[in-house]
Amino acid sequence: MTVLGLFAGALTTLSFLPQVLRTIRTRSAHDLSWMWLLMMSAGMTAWCVYGLLRTDVPVFVANVIALTLVGTLAGLKARHGRTTAIQPVSQ
Amino acid sequence: MTVLGLFAGALTTLSFLPQVLRTIRTRSAHDLSWMWLLMMSAGMTAWCVYGLLRTDVPVFVANVIALTLVGTLAGLKARHGRTTAIQPVSQ
Repeated sequence: MTVLGLFAGALTTLSFLPQVLRTIRTRSAHDLSWMWLLMMSAGMTAWCVYGLLRTDVPVFVANVIALTLVGTLAGLKARHGRTTAIQPVSQ
Repeated sequence: MTVLGLFAGALTTLSFLPQVLRTIRTRSAHDLSWMWLLMMSAGMTAWCVYGLLRTDVPVFVANVIALTLVGTLAGLKARHGRTTAIQPVSQ
């Protein structure tokens, strides 16, 4: 069961990595919503507490890492939020 | 404990709503990463299975709703992925 949780956590957690890399590469975060970033960070913090209290390793580990990545996205949004990548970047 | 899980799930799940609304309003999804959307959807599907097998209501409910919202984002990205909102929208 923990393997499934670690697999699910790895996917949802690591999914933020390509988003962070894209935002760094394009220096464009205009389309990212502040409210999404803030609510997601708060929710992940709550999931960390939930995972701790239930000694649920996958939930805890996934959310600590994801929180770091979402925090990075928020930093990038603060820095590049106004700029828009005029020339579309192939994905 | 379940209350904390439902709260955490509500936040991370509902966090996608402002991102969906922003993307609908700006018709601009250029900055969203396809890889993020695909990996997130796969991970959420795995979390649904995890929540089912562990009869973990918060994990299951949160991820079914979030999967719907991320699926909507993927649809919007497919439709608006090429366009960029030229005039920055205040957020």
